[in-house]
Amino acid sequence: MTDQEETRPQARLPRGFRDIPAGDVRARGAMLATIREVYERHGFSALETPAIEYLDALGKYLPDVDRPMGGVFGFQDEDGDWLALRYDLTAPLARMVAMAGDRLTKPYRRYQVGPVYRNEKPGPGRFCEFFQFDADTVGTPVMAADAELTMMVSATFEALGIPRGDYVVRVNNRKVLSGVLEAIGLGEDGDAAQRGTVLRAIDKLDRLGADGVRLLLGKGRRDESGDFTQGAHLGEAQIGTVLAFVAAGAGTNAETLQKLRDLVGGSAVGAEGVAELEEIAALVDAAGFAEDRILIDPSVVRGLAYYTGPVFEGALTFPVQNERGETVQFGAVAGGGRYDDLVKRFTGQEVPATGISIGVDRLLTALVSRGLVRTDSEDGPVLVLVLDRGEIARAQAMTAELRAAGIRAEMYLGTSGMRAQLKYADRRTAPIAVIEGTDEREKGEITLKDLKLGAELAKSIESHDKWKEHPSQVTVPRGDLVASVRQMLAAQAARQEG
Amino acid sequence: MTDQEETRPQARLPRGFRDIPAGDVRARGAMLATIREVYERHGFSALETPAIEYLDALGKYLPDVDRPMGGVFGFQDEDGDWLALRYDLTAPLARMVAMAGDRLTKPYRRYQVGPVYRNEKPGPGRFCEFFQFDADTVGTPVMAADAELTMMVSATFEALGIPRGDYVVRVNNRKVLSGVLEAIGLGEDGDAAQRGTVLRAIDKLDRLGADGVRLLLGKGRRDESGDFTQGAHLGEAQIGTVLAFVAAGAGTNAETLQKLRDLVGGSAVGAEGVAELEEIAALVDAAGFAEDRILIDPSVVRGLAYYTGPVFEGALTFPVQNERGETVQFGAVAGGGRYDDLVKRFTGQEVPATGISIGVDRLLTALVSRGLVRTDSEDGPVLVLVLDRGEIARAQAMTAELRAAGIRAEMYLGTSGMRAQLKYADRRTAPIAVIEGTDEREKGEITLKDLKLGAELAKSIESHDKWKEHPSQVTVPRGDLVASVRQMLAAQAARQEG
Repeated sequence: MTDQEETRPQARLPRGFRDIPAGDVRARGAMLATIREVYERHGFSALETPAIEYLDALGKYLPDVDRPMGGVFGFQDEDGDWLALRYDLTAPLARMVAMAGDRLTKPYRRYQVGPVYRNEKPGPGRFCEFFQFDADTVGTPVMAADAELTMMVSATFEALGIPRGDYVVRVNNRKVLSGVLEAIGLGEDGDAAQRGTVLRAIDKLDRLGADGVRLLLGKGRRDESGDFTQGAHLGEAQIGTVLAFVAAGAGTNAETLQKLRDLVGGSAVGAEGVAELEEIAALVDAAGFAEDRILIDPSVVRGLAYYTGPVFEGALTFPVQNERGETVQFGAVAGGGRYDDLVKRFTGQEVPATGISIGVDRLLTALVSRGLVRTDSEDGPVLVLVLDRGEIARAQAMTAELRAAGIRAEMYLGTSGMRAQLKYADRRTAPIAVIEGTDEREKGEITLKDLKLGAELAKSIESHDKWKEHPSQVTVPRGDLVASVRQMLAAQAARQEG
Repeated sequence: MTDQEETRPQARLPRGFRDIPAGDVRARGAMLATIREVYERHGFSALETPAIEYLDALGKYLPDVDRPMGGVFGFQDEDGDWLALRYDLTAPLARMVAMAGDRLTKPYRRYQVGPVYRNEKPGPGRFCEFFQFDADTVGTPVMAADAELTMMVSATFEALGIPRGDYVVRVNNRKVLSGVLEAIGLGEDGDAAQRGTVLRAIDKLDRLGADGVRLLLGKGRRDESGDFTQGAHLGEAQIGTVLAFVAAGAGTNAETLQKLRDLVGGSAVGAEGVAELEEIAALVDAAGFAEDRILIDPSVVRGLAYYTGPVFEGALTFPVQNERGETVQFGAVAGGGRYDDLVKRFTGQEVPATGISIGVDRLLTALVSRGLVRTDSEDGPVLVLVLDRGEIARAQAMTAELRAAGIRAEMYLGTSGMRAQLKYADRRTAPIAVIEGTDEREKGEITLKDLKLGAELAKSIESHDKWKEHPSQVTVPRGDLVASVRQMLAAQAARQEG
C-alpha cells in the first residue's frame, strides 16, 4: 500500500445532509416556480440574503434545541467574531430591514426561497439543510397583512393542485393564549416557566391527543419508552379552561370567536388578541375565504419564540400512513406569525412585521404522494450512437444539428460497443437511437430506432395489437435527420395520448 | 440606558457578503433558466449537493490562497471532524460519483447551480459567497466530452443574446504546457516549484502583457506599489520558447496546432496534448464551430490545481472600462478543464471527468452592461388604496378579485393617508391606483387612476401631444373592476409599443 492510498479520504456525506437527484430537482423547481408566481401576483418582491450572518444578528429563537451553539452551525472569523449559517429566513430579513432603515419603502412585502441550516439531530425526513420559502410583510401593524398571508397560503395550495378540502389554514393569536393564561392566574412575570410548559403541552395536541395534553398540563406524562416529562402542575379547573380553549375551534369562526371572548375573561391582552382574530376573520370573509379554507383554531401554537400576535399554519388534511403504519393527517407544511419586536432588537425602533414560511421539502413530499408532481424521469435525450470511433465527428455533427433544431440530444461518449450503447440509451430513457453503420454511411442513410415502442409493446397485449403495425425502426436519408426525428417524436407523443 | 439597549446587536453583514435586491434576483433567475434550457438540450441532468461537506472530501485545490484553512470556511462537528462550506461544485461532484460507484450510469452528464464559498479577502465585485453554474461529464476519457463542453458554452452565450464575435471559447491543454516545460528542461520532479512559477506567470498575460510575463519568467517583477514578485529565473532561450508558446494562438486552429507540434519537441506528454487538441479541433469543426467561436489558445492556464488535460475558458471580448478607466476586454466568465484524478482520490479507480463552470455573477454583470437583461424594476402591482380604514374589507375584496383574475395587485397595508399612499404607489411603480372614496362607494363606483400616463406626459412634449387626450383617470361601476383594470393595462401596453 502506498502513502497515497493510506491517506485516501472517504467518499461520504456529513450526517443530515444529502444529494438531490435530477427528478427531485426538477419537481421542486416546478413547485417553486408556481409559488413564486402566486407570491408575485400578491405584490411580493424577491430578496436574497447570504447564507452566513453574524451569530448575534440571528438571535436565539429556535425551539427544542438539543445541541450546543443553540442549534446553529457557527464558526469564528479572523477577528474572532462569531459567524453562523442562517437557521431561518426571518432573522436575516430583520437584519436587512434594520440596515436599510428609511431607505426601504414600507410596508415592504418580500419573498425569499433558499436553504437554511439547523445543527440538530437528523432523523427520517429531518435534515440539517432544508429549503424554506418565506413571505413577509414588514412595517405595518394592521391585521390585513396577516390576513393576506393566510389567504396567499390558501391560493398557493390551490395553485399547486391541492383541492379545497384537502388543506386548511389555521389561525390563532399568541395574545389570546396569554389572555387565557392570565385568566387562570398565570399572568405574572414569575409564571413564565410554567407558561412555557403549558404552550409546549398544547403544541403536542396533534401527536398526543387531549388525554396526553391533560397529563402534561397536570403532573406530567410517562411515554412508551419510560421517559417522564414534567407537567405544568395546573389544578383541575385551570386544566379545564386550557382544554376548553384548545378545543374551541370546532365550530364556525364566529362561534369560535364567541367562545374565546368568554375564555379570556377580563384579560386586556386576551381581548386584544380576540379583536385581532375578529379583524382577520372579517377580512378573509370579505375576500370570499370561508372556514373550509381559513379557520380560527386555538390549538395552533407554533414553536418559534419571537411571535407576538397572530400565528398561523397551513396544514394538509388528507390521510397518510406514518412511520408506525397509522393513518394520520399529513399535517403542517407552512407556519408563521407576527413578530413585532424582531427589527426593534437592532434599532430600538418599532417595525412591526408578519410572515409565513413554507417547508419546501415537506410540501414537495406531499405533492409527490398525491401524484401532483412527478419526480421520476421524463423522456431522456435522443441518443446518437458512435459505432466507428474513427467517424465520431459524423456523430458529433448529427448531434449538433439536432440540438440546433431545439431537440434534446446527446452523443454516446463512452468507449463501449453497440450493445452497451443501447443499454445506456435504455437507462437514460432515450426515446430514439440514431444509428449510422458502415453500410448506411456508404448509402448516405441513417437508421432511427424507436426505443419507446419496444417498451410499449412489452407492456400489454392490448397495446401490442394496437401498435404492432408501427415499425420499430426506419431508415432515412442522412439529410432528413432532423425532420425524421421530429416525426418519430410526434408519433410517440400521439401514441402516449391515444 | 436599559440592559436590553446595551446588548443590542448591530445590524450588519459580514465582509464579503451581500443582500441581492429583487431586480437582480429576477434577472439572474431569467439568465439561469436560459442556461438550464441549453444544458438540458445537450443531455445534461440536474444534481444538487449540500453546501456542507467533510473538509478532506473537498481537498485543497484553490489557487492563490491568502487565508488560513486553505481559503475555505471550516468548522468541527460534534465528533471533532472538520466540515467545510464547498468552495466549488466540482469537488462535491467527485465525492458523489465516488459514493455512487457502479450505481451511476456513465458517461454521466450533470449540471448544478448554486452558491459556493471562499474564505478570501473580498474586494470590488469579489465576494465570499457567489454563484457558479457547472456542467461536467464523468466517466469517459474521450475528447468528444471536452469538445462538447466548449460548444455548449458557445451555444449558451448565444442563447443569452451575446452575438458571435463578442465572445470566444479558448482551449488549451495542460499536457502541452508540460511538454513545452519538458522541452526547455523543466520536466523533472525537482522542477515542480519552478514549473508552478512559470504557470502563474503565463496566467498573468491578460493583466501584465508579454513584457510583464517576460520579467516573471526571468528574475522577477516589481509592481507599481513597489512589491517584488520572484521570477522563475529561466534563461533567455527558455523564456523565448515559453513566450513563443503563449503567443502561438494568433492564427487558425490548424496553424496553432502546427506551431505547438514544433514547440513540444520530442516530449511524449506534449505530443499527447497536441493530439488531444487536434481531436477537439476536428470535432468542433465537424459540428460547424469555427475559430471565431472556439479557438486553440496556448495562453489559457486556469488556476485550479486538479486539471490534467484540456483546459478551457469562455471569455467575452467586447470592451469595458476597468477600475482604472482603461478600456479592456470584459474577459473570462467561464472556465474549466479535464480532471481525471479527482474521483480516483477517493476510490483508487480511474474515473476520468471534465467540466466547465460559469461565474454566474460576472456573466450577469456582463449581460446587464450590454443591455441584454434588465435589473431595474418592471411595473409593480396594481395598488388598491384604503381611504377609510373602517371599510378595509371592501378594499380587500377588490384586491382578491384582481388577484383571482391573474392580475398582480396589492392593497395598501400602511396606516397613512391618500397622499402617502400615492407616493407609495409611485415608489412601487404601480401602473394603476384603484380608489373607492365615500362618494363613489355610495354610488357603487370606483376610480381607476392611470399612474403611468403622468410619468409619460412628463417625459416629453412629443408624448404629451400624443397622449394628452387620454384620460388620466376613469370612474366605472364597482362591478366592472376587473374588466376596467384589464382595459387600462392593455392601453398602457399599447402606448408603450406605439
